[in-house]
Order: sequence, then structure tokens, then C-alpha cells
Amino acid sequence: MPKKEFVNDWFRKRKERKSHLTADDIHPSLIAGNRQALSAAITLIESNLSADRNEARKLLQQCNKLSRKSWRIGITGVPGVGKSTFIESFGRLFIEQGLKVAVLAIDPSSNVTGGSILGDKTRMEWLSQQDAAFIRPTATGANLGGVAKNTFESIILCEAAGFDVILIETVGVGQSETIVHSMVDFFLLLMLAGAGDELQGIKRGIMEMADAIVITKADSGNEKLAEKAKIQYKNALHLFPAKESNWIPETFTCSSVQESGLNEIHHSIESYFNLAFNNGWYSENRKNQEVKRLNDLMKDKIIERFFQNFKNEERFNQLKNEVIEGNLSSYEAIDQLFE
Amino acid sequence: MPKKEFVNDWFRKRKERKSHLTADDIHPSLIAGNRQALSAAITLIESNLSADRNEARKLLQQCNKLSRKSWRIGITGVPGVGKSTFIESFGRLFIEQGLKVAVLAIDPSSNVTGGSILGDKTRMEWLSQQDAAFIRPTATGANLGGVAKNTFESIILCEAAGFDVILIETVGVGQSETIVHSMVDFFLLLMLAGAGDELQGIKRGIMEMADAIVITKADSGNEKLAEKAKIQYKNALHLFPAKESNWIPETFTCSSVQESGLNEIHHSIESYFNLAFNNGWYSENRKNQEVKRLNDLMKDKIIERFFQNFKNEERFNQLKNEVIEGNLSSYEAIDQLFE
Repeated sequence: MPKKEFVNDWFRKRKERKSHLTADDIHPSLIAGNRQALSAAITLIESNLSADRNEARKLLQQCNKLSRKSWRIGITGVPGVGKSTFIESFGRLFIEQGLKVAVLAIDPSSNVTGGSILGDKTRMEWLSQQDAAFIRPTATGANLGGVAKNTFESIILCEAAGFDVILIETVGVGQSETIVHSMVDFFLLLMLAGAGDELQGIKRGIMEMADAIVITKADSGNEKLAEKAKIQYKNALHLFPAKESNWIPETFTCSSVQESGLNEIHHSIESYFNLAFNNGWYSENRKNQEVKRLNDLMKDKIIERFFQNFKNEERFNQLKNEVIEGNLSSYEAIDQLFE
Repeated sequence: MPKKEFVNDWFRKRKERKSHLTADDIHPSLIAGNRQALSAAITLIESNLSADRNEARKLLQQCNKLSRKSWRIGITGVPGVGKSTFIESFGRLFIEQGLKVAVLAIDPSSNVTGGSILGDKTRMEWLSQQDAAFIRPTATGANLGGVAKNTFESIILCEAAGFDVILIETVGVGQSETIVHSMVDFFLLLMLAGAGDELQGIKRGIMEMADAIVITKADSGNEKLAEKAKIQYKNALHLFPAKESNWIPETFTCSSVQESGLNEIHHSIESYFNLAFNNGWYSENRKNQEVKRLNDLMKDKIIERFFQNFKNEERFNQLKNEVIEGNLSSYEAIDQLFE
């Protein structure tokens, strides 16, 4: 049983050398599926210490080669839509099938709002007690780039630890859902039934990313409203351009409390993955995502380095003010700056 | 009458010195509203010759200070939706009010497809004969950045020449409509009535940008279908998040042939501008657009300069291949490249 060994190793190590864990400490237990090792691995990749960064890199490189056909599913929705309750019931379906489920929660706003995700483990009560489940919020306070990096590397680690289904939870109000969309295979949007203005809190562009829209809380007399909302979204989705995956997004109602509607959603996602495996989209999409991520990171890095050595900041701000005041177009400003 | 003078000056100048026109040659006639001067000005800003670039910059700087409360309206729709016919009838409404209308057409695909915009002047037969109208396609073959720059600077020049309404026409299938959206006050999407799949050719995200959706060709027995499509889009638009402008997008049917529905669209746009002037969105939006454009240009320039002096291209391509083959994550690849 790798679990105990790993914990013993860990404590011994910390006692003996007072040092951090290394890639070699973690890797064997991680690939054996030990959750503490997975947790330690994520802590390692989240660390900003340079010694840890080196070990993290080593560990990731060991893990990257173990590519598995996991299901990466993004789940988004405004606060109050019932994400945790949904994930609790939805995750159960996979676990009952004998699969392992990891839940990664991103909430960049939580350091402002006080954070809803800290309570995730208690809100996902059943799930958090399962050996086949792993729940982890992304460290808050980091910038968006940091959140993206940590989440993506956490996915790799979860997959290395043998998790079959990775659920990435995010609130759909900031930019994090675009980031999540760029690292998942399937994107699920949870919505509340309402008077048509329920999307006010949802960021523009999210609806078009959805592979499925689920109207939650279809219970306690709310069933009709939910059904109506479902039809509205179904009609609206028809108006969008076809997806590259050839998948036609579906709409559902569900009640996490009554555990109704969940099987239909599960079957739909299963159909999606069958389609995506068969038509090659699954691997094509992942490759596209990786190349896009590389190009984005390259650009970010170039710009970061440029501004580290930038000596004309004052001049740039001057020109910027001229632009804002309408004396100069932005094209002229850039021309003058790089003259 | 500045028109003749300008033409005479021009020919004299070309004869005498065989040189290009300068900012000082063009400016007086341009601000007097001379269309040949406007045309020459746009040719100047489209030129890549460095002498011309300097004159272009000078001219733009003279023009930038003349900010007028123009209406910049983007008009997009797939080929065949009837953009030119719509603009012909729509532009007429403004001209009959005593306003001056400029039409700038962008079609980056036209160098591939053979180009539909070359025929614009003939297809907008009435409009092209009006003194109060100016029609100009953006030079094709240029890259997207070049198209954006030329179009934006052309807008500035048209406004300096006293044009009240600037219509920017684009096909909604590429990236150009995002560029157009970032330089207009109002964004109009033209659609054909169909079986719900009419949006297949339209790029994702366009519907959310629309301030109005117009179903064209509501004539010759097509009226019912057009009306049905209008209602579908109306319902779908309700599901989108509210716009920052506080404007609620509207849907219309119209027939450019029968000239029906155009007045309603015109009134709607008028209401939009009243709203935007009163709530401050008009100037706030233009300022936001300008700052965003400056930041985007700055990034593009930094990246362009980086790759001009990039010596590790081979290494980058190696790492890229490793990423594509799944041996390396993009984060690791960038780490290694900038080590």
C-alpha cells in the first residue's frame, strides 16, 4: 500500500534533512495513485522557490510521458448556481462506474470575495470521503497566468496519478473560464432558470464555448421554469456556428438534490467523447490547445522581458496621454516610440 | 470650388517634380471636403514608401485634431447577404437628410476569392454618383494588421473631410469583423433567413458583438421566413449579457429592393447614438478603443522586433516539436528556451 509508505517517507525526510520533497520522492507514490503524493506534487508545482521549481520541472517531465485518455471537463457557472452540489452528485456517477475523479477548483475572485472554494471539501461531503476522488482548490492570490499554469500542471499530475475524469470548476464571471476552456475537452455551463436576464453575471462569449448547458435546481416547484429556460437555450444554441468538433451542444435540466437529470448529462458527455475519439477531434484539440498555449506563453514571455528592460516608460506614458487626449492616433504613437 | 483646384494642383505637381503629394498639398482640399483629396490621402496612408509614410504621419496629425461627432457603423454579413444593396439604400437615407456618407469596404479574403469589393462602386450605383458619398475598398493583399491600420486611418481622414456617417463593410467570415468592431460605435449584423443553419458561415462571437441584427431579403415571398428568423434572433439576443453601453440590441427585417424596413433601422441607430451621447458611452468607448489599440500595437511591435533579432529559432522549433509530440509541456518548453 503506497499510501502509508509515502507518508512515512515524507515525515522521515522532513525530520532528517528539513528539506522539501524532491521529484524522486514523489514520483513513485504519485504514479501509484497516492492522493497525498498528488497533493504534495501540486504543492511543489505551486511553489515559487527556485529549488522547488527545478524539482517540479523534473516531476512534470516524468509525468508528461504517461499520457492517458482522460476526460477533462470544465464546469462553469455564476456563484449560487450550485456548482459544488452538482459536482458532488455528478462525480458520484463516475465513481460508481469504478472511475477516479479529480476536482480542481479555480476562483481568482476568491481572494476578493472571501472565497467560496475553501468550503469545497465540506460542501462535497460524500465525494471528499472517497478514495477514488481528489479535490483541490487552486492557490488563490496568484495572477491569472499563475492560475493557468498551476491548473494545467495540476491536470497533468492528476492524470499521472491515474485519475480518469478531471473536473475543473470555475466561476463564469472573470477570464478564468476562457483559460479553462483552453485546457479541457468538454465545457459545461451551469445556468439558473430566470426571466431571461439570468446571464447578466456570465461573461460574454461563454455561451458559445459551451458543449452543454445545464439548468440547475429543477426542483421544488421550479421545474416548469427550468424546462422553459432549457428550451430557450436550446433554440439559441441552434443559431451559433457549428463546432469544429462536429458536436452539437445539448441542453438539460437537473436537480442535484433529487439527483434527477444527471444520467442524461452523463450519457451526453459519453457520446461526446465517443464522437471526439472516433473523428480524431480529441487528440487534434489537445494538440491545438498545446500549440496555442506555447505561442501565448512565448508572447507573454517576450513582452514580460521587454518591459523588464524598458527604458522609455516615461515617453510611452506621455504618448499614451496624447492618444487618450486625441492629439495622436495609436499608430502614430507607436511609430514615434520605436522611431 | 476646391475640387478643380486640387486636381489642377495635383497634375501640375506631378508634371513639375514627378513627386508624390505631400501632406500640405492634400490637407487644405481634404478639410474642404474634396473627394479627390480624400482619395489621394488614403492612397498616401496606404503607401509603404518611407517618404510617403512621413507625409502620411504629418497629414494624420493635422487631421486628428479635427475630431467630429461622426457615426462609425460597422456592417457585416456573409457574401450573398446583400451588403452592397443594403448600403446603397441605407446610405441614401442619410444623404437625403443632408449628411455625408463614406463607405469603406474591407475584404481580406478578396485576394483569394477574386474579390467582390472591386464591384462595389458599380453595385452601389446611386450612391457612387452622389457628391455627398465616398466609396473606397481597402487595398487587398495586405496582412490583417495592415488592413486594420489602413481602415482606421481612413476613418480619421473621412472624418476630417467632413463625412458624418462612416460605414465600414466587412464579410463576417474572417477576423476582420473583430477589428472593425474595435473601431466603430455601432455594429450591424446582416443575416439571411434560413433553417437555423444560416449562421454556419459566420464566425463565432459575432452575434454577441451585434448592436442590431437585420434579416435581409424580406421580399418575394420570403417575408414569413424572415419574420420567423427575426423572432428567433430576438429571443437569442435576450440570453446574452447586457452591453456596457446599456443598449439593448434590436432585430429587424428589411428589403433593400422594396426599400422596406430601412427607416426602422435608421431610427433605432439614431436612438442608439442619442443614448450613447447622453450616457457618455460614445466617448468612453472611443477612448477605450484607442487605449486598447495602443496596447495591442505595442505588443505586436515588441513581438515583431523580438523575432527580427531572434537567434534561437531552431531551438524553439525543436521544443515546439517536443511539445506537439507530448514529451514536454508548453510551460517547460518556455522555461527551457529562456533559461
